[in-house]
Amino acid sequence: MPAASTAQIHPSVVLEDDVEVGHFAVIGAGVEIGEGSRLGHHVVVHDGSRLGPGVRVDDHAVIGKRPMRAARSATTSAADLEAAVMGADTIVGTGAVVYRGATIGERVLIADYATVRERVSVGSESIVGRGVAIENDSTVGARCKLETNVYVTAYSTIEDDVFVAPGVLTSNDAYLARTEARKTAFAGPTVRESARIGVGAVLLPGLEVGSEAVVAAGAVLSKDATGGRVHVGVPARDVRAVAPEQLRENGG
Amino acid sequence: MPAASTAQIHPSVVLEDDVEVGHFAVIGAGVEIGEGSRLGHHVVVHDGSRLGPGVRVDDHAVIGKRPMRAARSATTSAADLEAAVMGADTIVGTGAVVYRGATIGERVLIADYATVRERVSVGSESIVGRGVAIENDSTVGARCKLETNVYVTAYSTIEDDVFVAPGVLTSNDAYLARTEARKTAFAGPTVRESARIGVGAVLLPGLEVGSEAVVAAGAVLSKDATGGRVHVGVPARDVRAVAPEQLRENGG
Amino acid sequence: MPAASTAQIHPSVVLEDDVEVGHFAVIGAGVEIGEGSRLGHHVVVHDGSRLGPGVRVDDHAVIGKRPMRAARSATTSAADLEAAVMGADTIVGTGAVVYRGATIGERVLIADYATVRERVSVGSESIVGRGVAIENDSTVGARCKLETNVYVTAYSTIEDDVFVAPGVLTSNDAYLARTEARKTAFAGPTVRESARIGVGAVLLPGLEVGSEAVVAAGAVLSKDATGGRVHVGVPARDVRAVAPEQLRENGG
Repeated sequence: MPAASTAQIHPSVVLEDDVEVGHFAVIGAGVEIGEGSRLGHHVVVHDGSRLGPGVRVDDHAVIGKRPMRAARSATTSAADLEAAVMGADTIVGTGAVVYRGATIGERVLIADYATVRERVSVGSESIVGRGVAIENDSTVGARCKLETNVYVTAYSTIEDDVFVAPGVLTSNDAYLARTEARKTAFAGPTVRESARIGVGAVLLPGLEVGSEAVVAAGAVLSKDATGGRVHVGVPARDVRAVAPEQLRENGG
Repeated sequence: MPAASTAQIHPSVVLEDDVEVGHFAVIGAGVEIGEGSRLGHHVVVHDGSRLGPGVRVDDHAVIGKRPMRAARSATTSAADLEAAVMGADTIVGTGAVVYRGATIGERVLIADYATVRERVSVGSESIVGRGVAIENDSTVGARCKLETNVYVTAYSTIEDDVFVAPGVLTSNDAYLARTEARKTAFAGPTVRESARIGVGAVLLPGLEVGSEAVVAAGAVLSKDATGGRVHVGVPARDVRAVAPEQLRENGG
Repeated sequence: MPAASTAQIHPSVVLEDDVEVGHFAVIGAGVEIGEGSRLGHHVVVHDGSRLGPGVRVDDHAVIGKRPMRAARSATTSAADLEAAVMGADTIVGTGAVVYRGATIGERVLIADYATVRERVSVGSESIVGRGVAIENDSTVGARCKLETNVYVTAYSTIEDDVFVAPGVLTSNDAYLARTEARKTAFAGPTVRESARIGVGAVLLPGLEVGSEAVVAAGAVLSKDATGGRVHVGVPARDVRAVAPEQLRENGG
């Protein structure tokens, strides 16, 4: 075990062959780290987390964080959570935070300072860009690309092969934090497979973006986006079909 | 004192009963930490800061940071700052940064990677969401909710019970960094009590958002928002009264 | 050498006079740190990086990070990179990440949690605000001000004296991740000297913003912005000349 001698590794930790651990890393009780994984300096892996094999975790990243209980938060329950699981050959960037209760597929990239909350699954080969936040109780499919600073609100569903450009914002509370009714009405977006959303677009609560739909850069989407159509403006209007050469079924 | 032996704790630090300190934490001269507080791994508490009791500080958070002196910044003076104060039962998330000169009330949640700058006060039971930046010389009231990645510019006033949805941006420089006149004209927003601002809205400099006003998702607010009215669009227009059941006075 | 004894400093590191190193810092092989530089706690400086003199690096910052190889990323090559270089008297904020292959000028401020990627140069006296991301293969001139959470996409050119307000988003992929054609068509913005972009504006791919042009707050720029003119709205229209007193040539 070539772990740096400055790391704090609980005696119960299972490190498979060829695992590297950086300086001042902290690895909690019962953690399992697969063959060939590499942890950077100051990484924290909380108790019970399961990594790898072949996982790369960069400096200052935190895996297996327990949620914070805000007295006044409406969406996080105190229920017990499964340990965080990081699939084979996944990369976790500098300062990224993956909560307990998250399940990450294989060959995923979670970039610097991204956050993945509890009860979130991210499918294989997806990219979770720098500074992206995926809030609790959300599902992200395989081969998705969520670019820098995308905000995925709680209770979102994002299917496979979805592209979301930088700075896109989503929402789930049509009542803006008022009325009792809102507490049973939280609804994030449902983004169907192969949909694409342009830079800086904003999605109002509870909307569906259809398969192969495009929401254009800077659009504010206030009603569902029809599959295979391009939606432009504030509020967004359906203006044309997606160009055939850009459809996935045509090799786009 | 159950502090982990790997932490660097200055001999002058006062730790009350039942304080936990994570691995590789650094606690500077004269820091006081109240009963039952828990500090994570790699936490840094700079000299003189006062925490607790019952404060939770997660991994990699920094409390009491001194401002950086950018030669060309127009809004940060080199004046001496009071030590950072964190009220009882406050939670500070992973990697959050609270500057020297900040005063945080009781039962506040400062989420992961949020930043609270010098000469800022945050009232009790407010939530400062993940990645939120509250710039210098600003005031945030009690029971506010600033959601993920909200940007609060320098010289802002946010009263009690305000709700600000994810990604809302504010500004304070109507001259966009030109002319001498701007240097005496910095003016952030004034957001009156119980106002609400929707996801991705943008506020131009120096505006007032009246009590119980709503600025809708995606709106660009270019003049004051009248209290109790809903403002929609780019630029935002006053379109209707807020629904009675959504007013706080009606139990909303 | 007054380095704290808890730091891990490779024997080959060259520390000039009066360098301070915080607790639990990690400094890799061949790093050179100039006279009077100060490194905070938990700072990581990867191998070969060259700093200073007079550089300040705050807690948890990372210098010289190697890129992550996302299997499906279209814009990052695996080519070998020069070591990171930080000019004299530059300040690097808490948790900021400067990649290997970045070249930072003198008296630059890189604020908390900003990211500067590989093959990026930043000119002297520029300010890279909190949470700003400058993606790979981009150039930022001297005396620029990129405010909080600005997103600079890969392959951007930003000339001298440019002002970019908080939350501005840029983009480089007009094909939204589809078609083979896009792979040779990535084009970030070209922002000419002394141009200014307002809070929350969005720039579509490949556009030029002319010298002394203004893109207003909340605008979505869908075609080139003429120099010396103000562009407002969604999509942005050219509405008037910039006020003479706001031109740099008039001392603005």
